[in-house]
Amino acid sequence: MISTFSHEYRVKHNETDFWGRLTAPAFGDCMLDIAGLHAMEIGSGIDILQRQGLTWVISGMKLRFIDMPKLHGRFRMETHVSAFSRITTQRDFVAYDGDRKIAEASSEWLIINMETRRPVFVDEILPQLEEVCIPDGALPKYKHLRAFDGEVSIEMERKITYSDLDVNRHLYSMRYLQIALDTFDLDFFAKHRFTDIDLNFISEVLCGEVVTVIRRTNGDVHNIEMLRDGKAVFRSEFVTAEA
Amino acid sequence: MISTFSHEYRVKHNETDFWGRLTAPAFGDCMLDIAGLHAMEIGSGIDILQRQGLTWVISGMKLRFIDMPKLHGRFRMETHVSAFSRITTQRDFVAYDGDRKIAEASSEWLIINMETRRPVFVDEILPQLEEVCIPDGALPKYKHLRAFDGEVSIEMERKITYSDLDVNRHLYSMRYLQIALDTFDLDFFAKHRFTDIDLNFISEVLCGEVVTVIRRTNGDVHNIEMLRDGKAVFRSEFVTAEA
Repeated sequence: MISTFSHEYRVKHNETDFWGRLTAPAFGDCMLDIAGLHAMEIGSGIDILQRQGLTWVISGMKLRFIDMPKLHGRFRMETHVSAFSRITTQRDFVAYDGDRKIAEASSEWLIINMETRRPVFVDEILPQLEEVCIPDGALPKYKHLRAFDGEVSIEMERKITYSDLDVNRHLYSMRYLQIALDTFDLDFFAKHRFTDIDLNFISEVLCGEVVTVIRRTNGDVHNIEMLRDGKAVFRSEFVTAEA
Repeated sequence: MISTFSHEYRVKHNETDFWGRLTAPAFGDCMLDIAGLHAMEIGSGIDILQRQGLTWVISGMKLRFIDMPKLHGRFRMETHVSAFSRITTQRDFVAYDGDRKIAEASSEWLIINMETRRPVFVDEILPQLEEVCIPDGALPKYKHLRAFDGEVSIEMERKITYSDLDVNRHLYSMRYLQIALDTFDLDFFAKHRFTDIDLNFISEVLCGEVVTVIRRTNGDVHNIEMLRDGKAVFRSEFVTAEA
């Protein structure tokens, strides 16, 4: 079995923002894609799990961006499983332009029962993780973010619709990130770039539900949370630098 | 110069809906991607135009879906320029799974001056279109849709945000389509598939603007328009069949 899986990506028009650079959600799409390709290779793909009434869900991500590729640019992504416990699995990602590292990220996953929506024991379902896991040099895990306080910079409402859903019929993980980014205005994107992002996926959100998105900005640190009926379903922290 | 350009695509997780099939907007992303790749090849790419203060904008599309590929499925797309006049260029697309045609589409484009936002003469800017154009067997053009009447099935508001924009800093063409599709509920998608789509892109929409999206459904025909300050910026017609 292949422990480290590698794949090349090319940046498409719809994956860049108006600056012509790969966006953070589109980078995340590639992470989830390569995770799926590697999982198929090691017999832990979502299709195999779904046949047993199970599915993968993501609980958190930490992303560090060094230099985002431009439209039509190519980059190589590498991924491996770097840790697992009874309930969680960590998968790390590094992206390269030639020999130059341009981004890295870690992600934490659970396997849940599709009926009960409760986690199951990963090591019972996927004993092969022992064989493929490379524990040395695991990337740091995402920050567990607690309820934010401080002055609210912006608050907006967003209804979840069909195009926001993934194959699990809930809000797609990278759509949480996209909705969070939509609290910034164009002028902000013109002057800043993101260096570090921590994402906490707390609850599933379903089609038709309305969430409140609240951003608190304090210098270069931006905390964005998403609430449903006053309860947090998603928390995130973004660190920015001048573009 | 290559008259017919071909490229293979693989369906990623984020390009499918909850049924695990490639979505119409994601198919459109591939059309715009291959159009860009072919344009680069024949010296009519958006980067070359932008250096002259010009850019491509799309005025309409007609799509016909036979069988959408599934997650991780591969398909081949072919494109060529099929017609051009002083102001407009038509580009056609056919997608194949092996030898089997799975979708086809036509699109109409203008070149505009980025300052004045007015069209310029295509044949003066790109004389090479004469050489690459394959006029035989051009696909039918999109329907010009007029103001709709009849009972309104659903009406919703949508604010345009950062993630809706493309490199031209206006609402990305496939986001018009995605916003139109978001007027349907999950149950509808469970029971229907789209066979024919006509899209009329009437006006640019900018970040921060709010549009009203109105759908009128009459049997298997669905007319969806997008209004800003009461004036149409986009009209579309969708024909559906049982899934």
